[in-house]
Amino acid sequence: MTSDIRILIASKGNPAALAEGFKKELPEAQIFTDLAALDRGPVPYVVAGKPDPGVIASVPGARLVLSLNAGIEHLLEPGAVPEGVEIVRLVDPAMTEGMSDWCLAVVLSWHRNLPTYRADTKWTRRTEILSQDRIVTVLGAGTLGSRVARLLASIGFQTRVWTRSGRAVSGTESFAGPEGLRQATTGADAVVNLLPLTKETENVLNAELFARMARGGFVASAGRGQHLVDADLVAGLDSGQIGSAALDVFRTEPLPQDDPLWTHPGILVTPHVAAPTQAGSAVRIMVENIRRHRRGDPIPELVNRVRGY
Amino acid sequence: MTSDIRILIASKGNPAALAEGFKKELPEAQIFTDLAALDRGPVPYVVAGKPDPGVIASVPGARLVLSLNAGIEHLLEPGAVPEGVEIVRLVDPAMTEGMSDWCLAVVLSWHRNLPTYRADTKWTRRTEILSQDRIVTVLGAGTLGSRVARLLASIGFQTRVWTRSGRAVSGTESFAGPEGLRQATTGADAVVNLLPLTKETENVLNAELFARMARGGFVASAGRGQHLVDADLVAGLDSGQIGSAALDVFRTEPLPQDDPLWTHPGILVTPHVAAPTQAGSAVRIMVENIRRHRRGDPIPELVNRVRGY
Repeated sequence: MTSDIRILIASKGNPAALAEGFKKELPEAQIFTDLAALDRGPVPYVVAGKPDPGVIASVPGARLVLSLNAGIEHLLEPGAVPEGVEIVRLVDPAMTEGMSDWCLAVVLSWHRNLPTYRADTKWTRRTEILSQDRIVTVLGAGTLGSRVARLLASIGFQTRVWTRSGRAVSGTESFAGPEGLRQATTGADAVVNLLPLTKETENVLNAELFARMARGGFVASAGRGQHLVDADLVAGLDSGQIGSAALDVFRTEPLPQDDPLWTHPGILVTPHVAAPTQAGSAVRIMVENIRRHRRGDPIPELVNRVRGY
Repeated sequence: MTSDIRILIASKGNPAALAEGFKKELPEAQIFTDLAALDRGPVPYVVAGKPDPGVIASVPGARLVLSLNAGIEHLLEPGAVPEGVEIVRLVDPAMTEGMSDWCLAVVLSWHRNLPTYRADTKWTRRTEILSQDRIVTVLGAGTLGSRVARLLASIGFQTRVWTRSGRAVSGTESFAGPEGLRQATTGADAVVNLLPLTKETENVLNAELFARMARGGFVASAGRGQHLVDADLVAGLDSGQIGSAALDVFRTEPLPQDDPLWTHPGILVTPHVAAPTQAGSAVRIMVENIRRHRRGDPIPELVNRVRGY
């Protein structure tokens, strides 16, 4: 008996672990991990990491692409996913927790001067600022951004969130649109970027934004490398307008060994580890989305191609 | 006209700033900053940092000692504050926030391996553990400990709190008494000490406790230096049973320049800055306590000498 739930796993990460997970959670499915192994029959479901160009387009009968990532801008490149094939982002509570842990860790480490104290071997007491006296602006208020913003606010920071639409997050001040971006970042002591990458958000972390922040502020980005104008950040750090930064994402990953970001004393580089995909929980979410698709139920986090996320 | 609200500020920190604060918040009071300047009239209120032995005992007509600190073990030393004179701890929401910021900063910085990534200039992706998969035990659940525990739980950590009495903190598992201490620390990935210093809690951070924790765990202390057996911590770090530690308090402060804690790679030393007294808010709280004392109203955070805090 052949199943009509046929799934291709197009991931260079760990396709075997994902295949195991699907066999356990959805035993009636037929799983492929290699495009070359497909017969002519339709394969409605494609689990996609960052497959080579043309892979998804060559899957017969593909109907739904299940991304292994929250960011899916690479799947919207021309030709990557044929029109009519839907795309669902992976929004996994485990990844959300990982992302919020990373954001809180870098913000609090900056806030309490931990790198400075670590480097000091003398009893030098600095004036410590209370979280209530600092403004932190979170760019993006999807599942990730709104959790981070809520936790920052509960810790005590004056928290602002900026989104395209002005989505409200309890305990925070929300801002919308281009003028809202100016207001949300003016005087901010820290800016945390969790935006999706779209034409509108590319290069959003630039000299103009940095100049509006409070002097000596902190910049964290766990969105995409293309959000940041690297040279503007380095210039901001060198002028003292920016005090320090933490980056988890880069235009080229792995970050090339000779990139100046590696060694700039004001920059903490983490190697895209803020919110790694957790195979176990990811599979359970994708299986639920496949079941919804088969029942014709609405699927959360379905991508709007016009909006870009 | 002489006021009967007479206050001696016995602090080596910044008595002038405190005196200014009292003049503003309680203009009818008469403020002294020097024991030698007192006349024979009674001075019912003594604001106390860590005055020299005998200072408080020599204040005529002292009735209430208003501590500038949350920890008051030094005021319970024999002869420090005469029997019959009451002592009130300073529990200031601003200091509580500072303390919880510090605790969250060091726990999250350890949790997300920030020092390791900072020292690395290669793209080395470590397996990151989710907060939901880590156990953090907070020792002490007064105003400070319960806030820290609540926030750790809302971030996602499996949070345990231990107190003498087993005080409950929402979202956490609570433990009481000596057997509870063993249970609360068994398998803990991190232990955060916020206990008051008493005969029972002295040396609580010792080899036996470290041995019960999960291997490679993290220890943070912002209580008092006397809570920690320094040599046991160093031995725990050197054996790998403890992975790293963050200390804000020491047996001798400032920590002597030749102390090995300064240079041990596993230890972050911060110079007793977790929760510095904030003169403005501290004065407002002390003024409120003086008003309560004059009205005969109950004073929160009055010290129980038998209990020791």
